[in-house]
Amino acid sequence: MQGIDINCDMGESTSLWPYSIDNDIALLPFISSANIACGFHAGDAYTMHELVDAALTAGVAVGAHPGFADKENFGRTNMDLSPIKIYDSIIYQLGALDAFLKINGTKLKHVKPHGALYNMAARDEVMANAVCKAVKEYDAGLVLYGLSGSELISEATALGLASCSEVFADRTYQDDGSLTARTLPNALVEDEEQSLQQVLQMAMHGTVNCVNGKTIKVKADTICIHSDGPHALSFARRIHEMLNQKNIEIRSV
Amino acid sequence: MQGIDINCDMGESTSLWPYSIDNDIALLPFISSANIACGFHAGDAYTMHELVDAALTAGVAVGAHPGFADKENFGRTNMDLSPIKIYDSIIYQLGALDAFLKINGTKLKHVKPHGALYNMAARDEVMANAVCKAVKEYDAGLVLYGLSGSELISEATALGLASCSEVFADRTYQDDGSLTARTLPNALVEDEEQSLQQVLQMAMHGTVNCVNGKTIKVKADTICIHSDGPHALSFARRIHEMLNQKNIEIRSV
Amino acid sequence: MQGIDINCDMGESTSLWPYSIDNDIALLPFISSANIACGFHAGDAYTMHELVDAALTAGVAVGAHPGFADKENFGRTNMDLSPIKIYDSIIYQLGALDAFLKINGTKLKHVKPHGALYNMAARDEVMANAVCKAVKEYDAGLVLYGLSGSELISEATALGLASCSEVFADRTYQDDGSLTARTLPNALVEDEEQSLQQVLQMAMHGTVNCVNGKTIKVKADTICIHSDGPHALSFARRIHEMLNQKNIEIRSV
Amino acid sequence: MQGIDINCDMGESTSLWPYSIDNDIALLPFISSANIACGFHAGDAYTMHELVDAALTAGVAVGAHPGFADKENFGRTNMDLSPIKIYDSIIYQLGALDAFLKINGTKLKHVKPHGALYNMAARDEVMANAVCKAVKEYDAGLVLYGLSGSELISEATALGLASCSEVFADRTYQDDGSLTARTLPNALVEDEEQSLQQVLQMAMHGTVNCVNGKTIKVKADTICIHSDGPHALSFARRIHEMLNQKNIEIRSV
Repeated sequence: MQGIDINCDMGESTSLWPYSIDNDIALLPFISSANIACGFHAGDAYTMHELVDAALTAGVAVGAHPGFADKENFGRTNMDLSPIKIYDSIIYQLGALDAFLKINGTKLKHVKPHGALYNMAARDEVMANAVCKAVKEYDAGLVLYGLSGSELISEATALGLASCSEVFADRTYQDDGSLTARTLPNALVEDEEQSLQQVLQMAMHGTVNCVNGKTIKVKADTICIHSDGPHALSFARRIHEMLNQKNIEIRSV
Repeated sequence: MQGIDINCDMGESTSLWPYSIDNDIALLPFISSANIACGFHAGDAYTMHELVDAALTAGVAVGAHPGFADKENFGRTNMDLSPIKIYDSIIYQLGALDAFLKINGTKLKHVKPHGALYNMAARDEVMANAVCKAVKEYDAGLVLYGLSGSELISEATALGLASCSEVFADRTYQDDGSLTARTLPNALVEDEEQSLQQVLQMAMHGTVNCVNGKTIKVKADTICIHSDGPHALSFARRIHEMLNQKNIEIRSV
Repeated sequence: MQGIDINCDMGESTSLWPYSIDNDIALLPFISSANIACGFHAGDAYTMHELVDAALTAGVAVGAHPGFADKENFGRTNMDLSPIKIYDSIIYQLGALDAFLKINGTKLKHVKPHGALYNMAARDEVMANAVCKAVKEYDAGLVLYGLSGSELISEATALGLASCSEVFADRTYQDDGSLTARTLPNALVEDEEQSLQQVLQMAMHGTVNCVNGKTIKVKADTICIHSDGPHALSFARRIHEMLNQKNIEIRSV
Repeated sequence: MQGIDINCDMGESTSLWPYSIDNDIALLPFISSANIACGFHAGDAYTMHELVDAALTAGVAVGAHPGFADKENFGRTNMDLSPIKIYDSIIYQLGALDAFLKINGTKLKHVKPHGALYNMAARDEVMANAVCKAVKEYDAGLVLYGLSGSELISEATALGLASCSEVFADRTYQDDGSLTARTLPNALVEDEEQSLQQVLQMAMHGTVNCVNGKTIKVKADTICIHSDGPHALSFARRIHEMLNQKNIEIRSV
């Protein structure tokens, strides 16, 4: 049976106390991999613990979602850090999240960098190397999630680290395979039907229609969906149903 | 041969970049256990990595020094946190530091809470339980460092967690075995000779002379010295020489 | 014409970028005073600027909402800080927010402490004094908002600082005039009708029905409503209509 | 009588409690302008208050030293922020520091950006504009300190904001007038005699010898010295004496 992974970034909402992680938890039945924020761009020890427990209970693979130490800008600001600082910050975040898996008798399955770290490392070989080296030296059995066709995937391959090529349900693509920048007006696929079609086309045919009309190949090992926004839950449910109808199993890598 | 552990809190100095951890590293030859700050009250991923590597090279046992998430007050402000929040914050910090040992093929040996967390848990059974439970569930082989005679030591014992009773070279004692509060004028033993005598008496006889003149028993498994201050290094060297002369080996637990 | 102030804490939601302050801004037509978070327990320079501009445009009085420097716990954790540290942290926050009024050619109108700072200072004369002293020395023309009947109000009066006694639309009361602690199950008035009745009774008669059935007097200069929660906007609209029908004007102090 | 300003960045050391600002305060008699960190890259409310009071007592002009909100990297990491975010962060920091002058009945005299903000704005016209616009809109009477010959100075001039061209006692220069990057080995003038000669040449002749041997013109309105390092105090004293002997008065702008 054909299969695809569906992943979602979690633990990124507000830190209001008592913290509302209801949106994240409600989405768990419809995904196969959860990427949990590690306290740098978002998240804290308490939410990490809650989400790890909920994901394990739901049978969802738990991965780390490390980012720049910049809560003020939600880790979306490019920062010009040395490779060793990037390496160290990833080791730190992996260990911090893994601790909540360790007390559950298990461990991290994958790592997906966040925001500016993800995007910078997608294009910059030196940063991609720092990220992949940290992941591999922390645990060589981890799977690195990176933008399909990016330097992150190339570096993981070069280092012998398993990787997972990511595509996005609600982001538009340039014809070089990069995502349209969030600062541009057409960065997001706003229409839900179009977003579903994009998912289906990527999952079944490994192609995507770019903003300029061209259709390009994408390697689609995992599809990213989001837990925020008013329609996140119903959208997750619809993807789940649609893939089921096409006999495509939602499963982690 | 008789022996005693000498421990020192590390990674707590300024975050100036490039970071100066020279004082900490210079002290390593004279101690047997290093407690490294984990990024909450002080420290960051980069300094943690540097100090873990230096301590391992020096053959010094590496432990975690978790504190309240309050860099502004250096973790010295009492915070009224629920047991689950304390538990989670310790799990997080242990995992974060342990990651730098994991990439070196080893792991944490002990845990010593910092500042207000150390002092509150010394007196409060509920907090002591949250701390000890976190340490034990993270790794039952860890040794908990706590104030000699405190609730931390009692709770560790009750949970079957190994503990290490700590005494201080440069802090004065009340006759109930507690440390004189830092807010009081006579909290510190300012005179170096007196401090050396206090160390010797605690190491050889298991007693200390209190501020009110009384001599009380203390269990002295480990002696805390400090890495800051202009005379920290020469003082560490003198303790080392003095204990050597008395045939007391400086060794981790 | 009779009148009452309606105030709302603002700028406290998530820091997702681009930041959503839509809930706060939508509420402005229905209130007379906005208390804006100053970056310690919540908020940042960008949201402060946005909200100050929106409030001024809406003709709403702008006040500061300073809190403990503890975003992780949303400023709701008791912290044992010295009076001078509390004083300094308030001076800092008042200046930071006032700067956004200064560039608009105006200035702060009032100050309402947040969360644990509000509650601790309500009961503790020394903390209340530190807060009121900071407010007065920053600008003697400011109005201090504090819990009706609290030490904050007493200290303001003692220092000759104008004060405004606050009551809550959606919090329950103990018969000593204190709020039921948020950790207790019945802390909130969950039923909207009951909440409206509580507002009306406080505004018209200066009394409130406590959790134990007793009715006590409260000085109600200002009513606090909240901007979060799914029904916040409709509730604000209903209070507005209800008070209008009773010929009670919503106006700042 | 000829004169020159000597400025020093302050409040940037460790946040150990009780905080040691002794180095900063000891330097005050030898400088004319203090640039105080505002809590973003370093500093906190308490240290700001202490230093403002000490500087006013010493008759030293107090200015703000705003930086990127990045204590982990001491504000020395380039961040790719939008102009409005830079503008807002400066307004916030100016207001926060100015509050401690306001309670002393006075106000800020100048603004000197820190680290990566200073260096990026020196080269980038858009950032320089955001900085100068914030300073001017906050208080049009402020003086902007910027690298001699930089975009910061040009933008200030273009906006009609007074500026002060800064040169450095202990940094080496490239022949385009820029500072040698701190990442390069010869960024600092390590030799104290050479540093004194550089100061004298800049103050008297308005020239500096570059790393490649060329001598270039620099506009030297103010000389930056540093408060950290083992010889900071003796060096400040020597500059003071040397300029006195040459009948050059040390005075703020």
